Amino acid sequence: MSERSLVKGEALWQRAERVIPRGVYGHQNAGTHGARHPKFLARGEGSRVWDVDGNEYVDWMCGYGPMVVGYRNPVVDRAVAEQMELADTMSLPGEPMVEYAEMLVARTEGMDWAIFAKNGADATSWAIDTARAQTGKSKIVKGRDAYHGARPWTIPALPGAPSHHREELLEVAWNDVDGLRSIFAEHGDDIAGVILSPYDHQPHDSVLPAPGWFDAVRELCDSHGAVFVMDDVRAGFRFDLGGSHVAFGAKPDLVCYSKAIANGYALSAGLGVGALRPAAEKMYLTGSFFFQNSSFAAAKATMEELEQSDAIATIHRIGQLLIDGLEAQAESFGLPFVSTGPAAMPSFKFNDDLKHALFHEWCDLATEHGAYLHPAHNWFVSAAHTEEDVDLTLRATEQAFAAVAKG
Amino acid sequence: MSERSLVKGEALWQRAERVIPRGVYGHQNAGTHGARHPKFLARGEGSRVWDVDGNEYVDWMCGYGPMVVGYRNPVVDRAVAEQMELADTMSLPGEPMVEYAEMLVARTEGMDWAIFAKNGADATSWAIDTARAQTGKSKIVKGRDAYHGARPWTIPALPGAPSHHREELLEVAWNDVDGLRSIFAEHGDDIAGVILSPYDHQPHDSVLPAPGWFDAVRELCDSHGAVFVMDDVRAGFRFDLGGSHVAFGAKPDLVCYSKAIANGYALSAGLGVGALRPAAEKMYLTGSFFFQNSSFAAAKATMEELEQSDAIATIHRIGQLLIDGLEAQAESFGLPFVSTGPAAMPSFKFNDDLKHALFHEWCDLATEHGAYLHPAHNWFVSAAHTEEDVDLTLRATEQAFAAVAKG
Repeated sequence: MSERSLVKGEALWQRAERVIPRGVYGHQNAGTHGARHPKFLARGEGSRVWDVDGNEYVDWMCGYGPMVVGYRNPVVDRAVAEQMELADTMSLPGEPMVEYAEMLVARTEGMDWAIFAKNGADATSWAIDTARAQTGKSKIVKGRDAYHGARPWTIPALPGAPSHHREELLEVAWNDVDGLRSIFAEHGDDIAGVILSPYDHQPHDSVLPAPGWFDAVRELCDSHGAVFVMDDVRAGFRFDLGGSHVAFGAKPDLVCYSKAIANGYALSAGLGVGALRPAAEKMYLTGSFFFQNSSFAAAKATMEELEQSDAIATIHRIGQLLIDGLEAQAESFGLPFVSTGPAAMPSFKFNDDLKHALFHEWCDLATEHGAYLHPAHNWFVSAAHTEEDVDLTLRATEQAFAAVAKG
Repeated sequence: MSERSLVKGEALWQRAERVIPRGVYGHQNAGTHGARHPKFLARGEGSRVWDVDGNEYVDWMCGYGPMVVGYRNPVVDRAVAEQMELADTMSLPGEPMVEYAEMLVARTEGMDWAIFAKNGADATSWAIDTARAQTGKSKIVKGRDAYHGARPWTIPALPGAPSHHREELLEVAWNDVDGLRSIFAEHGDDIAGVILSPYDHQPHDSVLPAPGWFDAVRELCDSHGAVFVMDDVRAGFRFDLGGSHVAFGAKPDLVCYSKAIANGYALSAGLGVGALRPAAEKMYLTGSFFFQNSSFAAAKATMEELEQSDAIATIHRIGQLLIDGLEAQAESFGLPFVSTGPAAMPSFKFNDDLKHALFHEWCDLATEHGAYLHPAHNWFVSAAHTEEDVDLTLRATEQAFAAVAKG
């Protein structure tokens, strides 16, 4: 790989730093990922991406989730192009919004209606406020350290956020039924709702719901008149097209989707049970681009692609091949490499790895050899990933494991 | 117009009401606009839109602002299509973000850096929190009843929003320098910033800044260490390509853009002076689709179209023709029709019109005759509007004025 260069990317980073705070702000800032990691991408196709220097990678981040049926998926992109021949954002909504609402409501288990927005955080923030509008209460229970979007209420000590944003929140450890019972015993009269992901997404450790966890959430919400919100923004469309709550055995009142809903086009959704419709009708939720026809055309086509290609099965099969391959490699090198999380969204780490420094180094090495791997976030598998992608990735990670094993 | 039908739109509305709370939520809900008003649009081209029944309108709402160089603008849409041949949302940003940041910073007077998001409210909410991060203070001064996005902090008594969202806000009447001085005298030690639009956008009354108003804002912010935020989301790119603060004589520290920035593609921006860069670097601002390449390609092309076509001049010339024509018509019918607001974003009403019922009726009548007019919001003029559009509109409004004059 002696010819590999990142020189154009570095020059672009210098330009970015002049006009953008920190060069890139937010979750796509790769400035701390290691010197072999690209900072900008130029092109994507299926499961592959190319950085601005022309280096090719098998991409296991999928845009941090949005890509689920392949970059430049021809069915999705054709649906968008056809819609653009008519119109995109106009002064009134179009039929695609209604058609997609019908489609999504028909498929999402237990849900009777839908609203749409642009960001995942638009949906999760709307959901907790809808729970408040429904109940007349203000407190929200969330998982400890759980992320529900880049908004002041979900991130502790966010710079510039007044402290009151956090005062209405109560946190519970994942799967801690007794802890949740205690919180409801103490604050039950003030709790508007509980918001949880279908499983706990921490940077290096995914924790699946223990038997009884979601039943207890449902029971405590019912007995205290609280609303159970499922934040399916990150996991949605990778586990069950009826909602990840089906795959993980939860019965929520509200479901939030975004990321993979339209294969990368900007859209998020909130769905609810019939009993919450009056509260939803009171809410004021809107934005300049919420009625963009192209995003609904993309979402419809993405759903059709997911269904007709049996995408969920492919995602799980390929994800499991990747996990199995990595675990076998690690074992052959005698390295304490650990996989957590489901096959569709695997998380990895080395045990006894202070600040995950070794894992960072390992990801950086693998990325140099053509597998785009993230050192501090779960990865994502798409229906466009193939066995060849797994093979290419394992060739890259073999070199990374070998280098790490040498020290 | 005996053949005009809205039957398909009404059928679609029935379908929408089954799966979407209130059929359409938010600002594009036309359910209260009158029986002659369409509720869904199917197609747009230049300044024209067609509803789902095929009725054509000259559209004076421009998607509530986003459309500024014409629906389906070929230059903008071609730039997007070319970008889509490479990629849209990926796992890292692309060069179009950096190029557009350079372009926007170079053009926006007094601003040194930029960040991007999806909704206008993403930008305005980020701006007030950046002011807080910069100053270590929490209170924000805003114009009385001013709208800065569909977020709890900008809308009084929003259902589901805990009251603390409003406790950090102080409101001042537009142009009330003495009132602003009093607020700073009482709360100056706690004021992080002042957020204002370039002029006051109320549904039926636009109020321009009085001489000295923005100078007083600047002086009070300077003397109390507060940040002056210009919310140019609604007005931006219709008055001055250096920012509406240039046209209206303000010297802000932060500028927020959205709506017309990319001719309908979802994008918003925040720009700041160099002194606020450290605060901006501390902020955590992100979203799944914030790095969508197509939106930056669209924004670059929109800026080029605005510049090469001398769009601002066209917008003002056509807007003034419309205002003059409507005022002349109203006078000929002896009706107390009043225009407020600048030519690019005119607002209209009838004097002594209880709850604006007459104006609602008048808009509904004109809409039936092919001019899409909003009864409770300022209108928007684009560079795609022509003298022929004004003539067609005046033919429609002549019938509306005549019907209103008859009673």
